[in-house]
Amino acid sequence: MYEGPVQDLIEALGRLPGIGPKSAQRLAFHLLTVDPADAERLAASILAVKEKVRFCSRCWNVSELEECRICRDTRRDPSVVCVVEEPRDLMALERTGEFRGRYHVLGGAISPIDGVGPDDLHIKDLLTRMVDEDVSEVVLATNPNIEGEATASYLARLLRSVGTADHPVRVSRIASGLPVGGDLEYADEVTLGRAFSGRRDL
Amino acid sequence: MYEGPVQDLIEALGRLPGIGPKSAQRLAFHLLTVDPADAERLAASILAVKEKVRFCSRCWNVSELEECRICRDTRRDPSVVCVVEEPRDLMALERTGEFRGRYHVLGGAISPIDGVGPDDLHIKDLLTRMVDEDVSEVVLATNPNIEGEATASYLARLLRSVGTADHPVRVSRIASGLPVGGDLEYADEVTLGRAFSGRRDL
Repeated sequence: MYEGPVQDLIEALGRLPGIGPKSAQRLAFHLLTVDPADAERLAASILAVKEKVRFCSRCWNVSELEECRICRDTRRDPSVVCVVEEPRDLMALERTGEFRGRYHVLGGAISPIDGVGPDDLHIKDLLTRMVDEDVSEVVLATNPNIEGEATASYLARLLRSVGTADHPVRVSRIASGLPVGGDLEYADEVTLGRAFSGRRDL
Repeated sequence: MYEGPVQDLIEALGRLPGIGPKSAQRLAFHLLTVDPADAERLAASILAVKEKVRFCSRCWNVSELEECRICRDTRRDPSVVCVVEEPRDLMALERTGEFRGRYHVLGGAISPIDGVGPDDLHIKDLLTRMVDEDVSEVVLATNPNIEGEATASYLARLLRSVGTADHPVRVSRIASGLPVGGDLEYADEVTLGRAFSGRRDL
């Protein structure tokens, strides 16, 4: 046990995800020897993020204002909505520069094992948006794992039922397959199977 | 790029050692969703550690007061000093409960590649303590790697010269060998060689 403040810091750092006791100790000693201005900046950023950041009232992305930067951007097409699990997935897609519609952040994926059901996600808000914003296409970009696929299947069924004959809703799923730069030899069979069944004409 | 405060936090976290951009992002989102009290506790601990913790004026261990808990403890034997590189090494030794003397924290090891020479470590203070505190035994517990061994050799030569005929100084080095619970088969040859040459009569 270290003396008071050092031990407190090690314990506070150790509560962060993926930081074990040894890492917490290393980080604490780093902070102890670092320039005070750097330590203050870190402490201030932690407080600022809790104080200033909230979730977009429309899409649940992180935001400083009532609506996030993407929802405020009038150049984005409101008729296409891309559904993701977390704000970081949204950022990953934004970095591709491929998508010019809006997003909807679910806040997770359906996972009975973790006790997460459809009602724990922002699905009701998505359905409201479908009508209010006259959405004609939804791209399901949940993770390609069991929970993400289950969530995508659930949403696909739900969203198709929203469409009517004179206002159909197109629901699509991002492609699964080999990562660019990958190697057939080292791909697992499920990924390779997906890559094969999802082949496109050239 | 995230909106202001989130990006600031990701950058501040990314400056910590061993925290890459992905980990920084994961930690930032964790802090965003965590109970505000937990985030405040972390921020407060960071500030407290910078404000309240200093280094022991005697042994350079971390301390809240002028002298650290160990140096203040009158039950510890001041005639035996264990030399370590960092405060965390001191804590690791304390956890064994084997040592009842005092410590001296060097603040690193001699490493010409990193530009760390003897003058960059708290060696002069150690020599002063040898005389002032009438030290009769020094245990060198620097790390068993190249820098630690070089530092131990350097200190051994220096400290022996401090001893006189009527007041000799015993200088020892912690043992290198197989870790307890280890396996001969998987030990590297240097460690195994050390274990062999350091064998003890039973």
